Amino acid sequence: MTIKSYIRSIPDYPKKGIIFRDITTLIKDPLGFRMVIDSFTQRYIKEHTDFDIIAGIESRGFIIGGALSYTLGKGFIPIRKKGKLPAEVVSYEYDLEYGKDTVEIHKDAIKKGDRVLIIDDLCATGGTAIAATALIEKLGGIISEVAFIVDLPDLKGSKKLKNKGYNVHSLLEFEGE
Amino acid sequence: MTIKSYIRSIPDYPKKGIIFRDITTLIKDPLGFRMVIDSFTQRYIKEHTDFDIIAGIESRGFIIGGALSYTLGKGFIPIRKKGKLPAEVVSYEYDLEYGKDTVEIHKDAIKKGDRVLIIDDLCATGGTAIAATALIEKLGGIISEVAFIVDLPDLKGSKKLKNKGYNVHSLLEFEGE
Repeated sequence: MTIKSYIRSIPDYPKKGIIFRDITTLIKDPLGFRMVIDSFTQRYIKEHTDFDIIAGIESRGFIIGGALSYTLGKGFIPIRKKGKLPAEVVSYEYDLEYGKDTVEIHKDAIKKGDRVLIIDDLCATGGTAIAATALIEKLGGIISEVAFIVDLPDLKGSKKLKNKGYNVHSLLEFEGE
Repeated sequence: MTIKSYIRSIPDYPKKGIIFRDITTLIKDPLGFRMVIDSFTQRYIKEHTDFDIIAGIESRGFIIGGALSYTLGKGFIPIRKKGKLPAEVVSYEYDLEYGKDTVEIHKDAIKKGDRVLIIDDLCATGGTAIAATALIEKLGGIISEVAFIVDLPDLKGSKKLKNKGYNVHSLLEFEGE
């Protein structure tokens, strides 16, 4: 089994014409979950481990980021939706297809010059990931890489991140499917 | 350093008179995070590993549950707020101090007879944890244990869980502090 084969595709979710790529079927399988974490660990244990801390994007990024923080011996920082973090935060508002959204990070989560790996389950239009890079840079952090299990290159999020100069890594793609 | 010493206490959050126990300062420290995951792993790798899968409660339960799923070689199931899961769900509504909340689980997350470890960061009144046990039992699952980093025994959540017959485990307590 490949990692990709564990992912469930749900047609017309959250709306008509969209195919939702659901990782819950991947991570509920012990081997599927292990393959994901081992793939990232292998990458970052070698030459790409030039970061100090891992930032996971709420909520699915927490599952992957938590495991990876353990395997790599790094601390974990949550990037959360507005109003969820208890201490002083910096915020970043960004546009969605309809309306706006805001993500936040604790002000003391990162020190100036810290190198950060950002992790989430899936890259679509890249809005939340770009917001995450902005938050970390507001605090003086440096983005080492932005990593996903799944990239949807048709939606151009990973391209946008690369055009901004960030390293982007994903384990697999769904393209034109 | 003890695990407890890494936890930040925030007075009057989310409202006057409440002391919020913030685990973000614990998990952003590589040693703090490792102590937490190793403590749970030590427990469950020995005689208490009579479960098939780990269910984490959104959102902080995802960070701990993801890491623990990896160390123990188990799959991970998310228990989420209403409307977040893409496939068919079962729901459970429960009372909060003011108003109601609903948690959901995918119908195919658990098979009848599966033994489940439920994990979250903190046990206060126990409302969400009890809702999580109800969801798993609706699907025919059996609760092996409910585990937390922090228990607040003054708020009686862990007592309620024990009175319902569940095994409860926490790494540390804040009591009368």
